[in-house]
Amino acid sequence: MEVCKDRLSLARFRSGLGESVGFVATMGALHKGHLSLIEKSLQENTHTIVSIFVNPTQFGENEDFGSYPRTLEADLALCERAGVSAVFTPSVEDMYSTDEITFNPPKNMGYILEGFDRPTHFAGVIAVVLKLFMLVKPRKAYFGQKDAQQVLILQKMVRDLFLDIEIVPCEIVRDDDGLALSSRNIYLSAKEREIALCIPRTIALVEQHIKNGEMSVDKLKALALESLRLGETTLFYADFFNRELKPIAVVKKQESIFLLALRVGKTRLLDNLWI
Amino acid sequence: MEVCKDRLSLARFRSGLGESVGFVATMGALHKGHLSLIEKSLQENTHTIVSIFVNPTQFGENEDFGSYPRTLEADLALCERAGVSAVFTPSVEDMYSTDEITFNPPKNMGYILEGFDRPTHFAGVIAVVLKLFMLVKPRKAYFGQKDAQQVLILQKMVRDLFLDIEIVPCEIVRDDDGLALSSRNIYLSAKEREIALCIPRTIALVEQHIKNGEMSVDKLKALALESLRLGETTLFYADFFNRELKPIAVVKKQESIFLLALRVGKTRLLDNLWI
Repeated sequence: MEVCKDRLSLARFRSGLGESVGFVATMGALHKGHLSLIEKSLQENTHTIVSIFVNPTQFGENEDFGSYPRTLEADLALCERAGVSAVFTPSVEDMYSTDEITFNPPKNMGYILEGFDRPTHFAGVIAVVLKLFMLVKPRKAYFGQKDAQQVLILQKMVRDLFLDIEIVPCEIVRDDDGLALSSRNIYLSAKEREIALCIPRTIALVEQHIKNGEMSVDKLKALALESLRLGETTLFYADFFNRELKPIAVVKKQESIFLLALRVGKTRLLDNLWI
Repeated sequence: MEVCKDRLSLARFRSGLGESVGFVATMGALHKGHLSLIEKSLQENTHTIVSIFVNPTQFGENEDFGSYPRTLEADLALCERAGVSAVFTPSVEDMYSTDEITFNPPKNMGYILEGFDRPTHFAGVIAVVLKLFMLVKPRKAYFGQKDAQQVLILQKMVRDLFLDIEIVPCEIVRDDDGLALSSRNIYLSAKEREIALCIPRTIALVEQHIKNGEMSVDKLKALALESLRLGETTLFYADFFNRELKPIAVVKKQESIFLLALRVGKTRLLDNLWI
């Protein structure tokens, strides 16, 4: 496995590969969720490239850029064991210069939900993913459905900019207790984690009621709000949308999405259900 | 010569070409300035693709999008005679959808000079050129030095987004009377055109004084302002910069640029000198 520490070494390595390159963009602190993306890419492409880069432009001023978990040695070992062709670990200076061209996410999709509380977040995600796409030149790129809004905005980016890249959304991977895997779960105390389990329970409850034929957003939302431990958590949102992130009143299979974000202690947790 | 009227037919045509593709992005109303770009591309690449697209996003609300000269038949004939492989003539709907990701040009480069009077202009230029680059996939792209700020911002875009494309700036082509060729010159009356000739005279004067060793921006600027017919024109700017568009006090060869914009009648005219 090649470790490319800068753009030049990545470009050199990439030029020796053909077209069948899959890509997994990460901020490191890799867990089984990332591994599932990597494994899917390995199945579908001749080569898989993983990037590990804690991207400063997608963090707000008071967010955890400085303290975001960094576990490079373990990450590289995981990638090597999995069979990744190359890992790209650029520095911030490698990825950004001064006075750059910047991006505005779609007005309707980019400033609600995560974008409401983190108004600069998706501009940073778009910048780094577009740059990485131009460097890695993948045919397919794998992203977790847990960051649902990110997936939908990146699919929009691919359509808007006519990129020859397929964004492949991959299913949420959960721990044994049901909590969706996230590098930020390490911030949770044992007590907070126990509280946080109301999130996957709520997702499962909503899923079950939809299976039983309940399609009214009002009713499903009432069930969800009852199931979340709102006295012990801070709810950011729990709502139903179509795949363009427009609010809906009735759930439709293959078209709707249930998005949930709440804070437990100091940790913002996301979960969702692609209906 | 292939005429590709939509993205799909362009993609189909492009897939049959190799890597050696040169690109000339135009808004049509082709003149000898465009032809010089096309000819340079034909010399340096196996195939040349020309786009003809009057891009709405780079026009301000009160600008001439509706009345911009459109001469498609003559443009196609010129391209065919020159030996162009394909002309791409998309519709606005082909190039833009709704609620798109948008761009902000570099703060220091994008909102001065042309960007001061036309604050949305370069965002539109970046959007359309990036989209066209993704569709045409050229190795080299040819732009006229007359739109100097555009060239410098597109070179910045290529660096910021790590595009595998070389922006080739091409020399200004002038009419017999010295006026830099522009599709907007047709807006000038005979009287206005005569007044406008103070512009190339000023460029030539500044060039001559630099050749003679005058490197002081203050002195060169005073000469320029005297040479422009400021009673009969409206001056937007006439100033000296480095290639990052920062103001300078002393001219340096290979590093400086003299930029000039003024209005004659209702027509905004640009000219410049790459020193």
